[in-house]
Amino acid sequence: MTRTEREKMTAGEPYQQFDAELIGRRKFIRQQLQVINNETDNEKRNGGFKKLLGDVGDDFFVESEFKFDYGWNIHIGNHFYGNYDMTFLDTCPITIGEHCYFGPNVGLYTPIHPLDPVKRNADVELGAPITIGNSCWFGGRVTVLPGVTLGNNVVVGAGSVATKSFGDNVVIAGNPARVIKQI
Amino acid sequence: MTRTEREKMTAGEPYQQFDAELIGRRKFIRQQLQVINNETDNEKRNGGFKKLLGDVGDDFFVESEFKFDYGWNIHIGNHFYGNYDMTFLDTCPITIGEHCYFGPNVGLYTPIHPLDPVKRNADVELGAPITIGNSCWFGGRVTVLPGVTLGNNVVVGAGSVATKSFGDNVVIAGNPARVIKQI
Amino acid sequence: MTRTEREKMTAGEPYQQFDAELIGRRKFIRQQLQVINNETDNEKRNGGFKKLLGDVGDDFFVESEFKFDYGWNIHIGNHFYGNYDMTFLDTCPITIGEHCYFGPNVGLYTPIHPLDPVKRNADVELGAPITIGNSCWFGGRVTVLPGVTLGNNVVVGAGSVATKSFGDNVVIAGNPARVIKQI
Repeated sequence: MTRTEREKMTAGEPYQQFDAELIGRRKFIRQQLQVINNETDNEKRNGGFKKLLGDVGDDFFVESEFKFDYGWNIHIGNHFYGNYDMTFLDTCPITIGEHCYFGPNVGLYTPIHPLDPVKRNADVELGAPITIGNSCWFGGRVTVLPGVTLGNNVVVGAGSVATKSFGDNVVIAGNPARVIKQI
Repeated sequence: MTRTEREKMTAGEPYQQFDAELIGRRKFIRQQLQVINNETDNEKRNGGFKKLLGDVGDDFFVESEFKFDYGWNIHIGNHFYGNYDMTFLDTCPITIGEHCYFGPNVGLYTPIHPLDPVKRNADVELGAPITIGNSCWFGGRVTVLPGVTLGNNVVVGAGSVATKSFGDNVVIAGNPARVIKQI
Repeated sequence: MTRTEREKMTAGEPYQQFDAELIGRRKFIRQQLQVINNETDNEKRNGGFKKLLGDVGDDFFVESEFKFDYGWNIHIGNHFYGNYDMTFLDTCPITIGEHCYFGPNVGLYTPIHPLDPVKRNADVELGAPITIGNSCWFGGRVTVLPGVTLGNNVVVGAGSVATKSFGDNVVIAGNPARVIKQI
């Protein structure tokens, strides 16, 4: 059975980004985000985002401008708050537990390009999922790299870059992020 | 005498973020910012910001998109220039001296959440003020954490994260920022 | 022969930023960016950017919001892709080779202010060019400082701050960025 480029992309396997389904979805999302991010009525704005995301809880509040690639692969638990200008690149699944609070300018990036420039310039992309546990608090301007998993009750200091995975009950900070405190 | 949630918030004490006065102000600010940040006439845009801020000098120029939480707690001295896409989270006072120049994407964050997830999930917030002296220059993408005070004539390198306070006449850079030069 | 402030600025020499030609261009660019960044039709948006840039290849795709100072000094080779919310401060030339892919929130900053606050407050600015080779991939939230040159086939990890120059075929990451791998 032939797999679609969307299926390959979501699985983290090499896929062709100029696939018609993917191009169409990206175009649709950007048009929707343009409208929704200009909506200052909180219910209308958050309701608009909810329709585009894979899974999302009832209690969901995100400030504008929230930007993402497809929406399909974003799964967010109940009681989520995201501050201004978050960017989630969801070629692969981004899964966030319950009761997570994110500061402004948080960036979760799942796409990977080949290090070999010949392969990269052929427009082949890969990716790896990002998974965040329950009750996490991300300070402003946190960056999370492809393939990173964070446990429950993880606090990430503002301006940190999470390049690898961490377990439960820790405060991590820095670039690259390291454990600075047990909770 | 009963203190309001706004008073507790500004003092850095635990406060209830779902207080009606605070919700109303946040909604008003976001509606205003949507309009003002779309204003390409420099005088109209800067005049719009000035009306929302606690204190601001005559000579004040900020590019869009400038975003903040309440505006009430932002106090900026004369001769201020702020480049594209600054974000000031002003649950607690943000005080900036005279003759300060900020690059694009500067983030000043005063809010603090409890590290204990049970307390954090009860929507109790805290905060700590940020104070910047006179004649400071912040490069692009500088992040300043709650409680930080910087002296006069401080230069902060682009991409730095100021996690603690520094005195006068220094260049600081890195994550966390350290002194790299005396001026 | 008298040189214009624009010529001095582009050469990296001290210039007066309140020169009439420079003020006019900044105003024009901000008005244009406001319109173009709201354009969700990809061809119209990218066509709009192309008219404002010094040089740009046929194959050029940039997501909104792309922001820059003048556009004059931005030179980008063919086959360029830039993700959401890039900021290029082009008081001095920004030169990017062919086949470069940039993640979201990349910031290239050429302006320099004097460290002496007396000179800085006199509104004298300087700058230094940024030069990027062919086939480079920048992860999200990469910051590049004035005067930095990167070679061909350079990969910059997400969240990194490039404070100095690097040659060909390396992966650099961190703040400040260091070589973490040869390609």
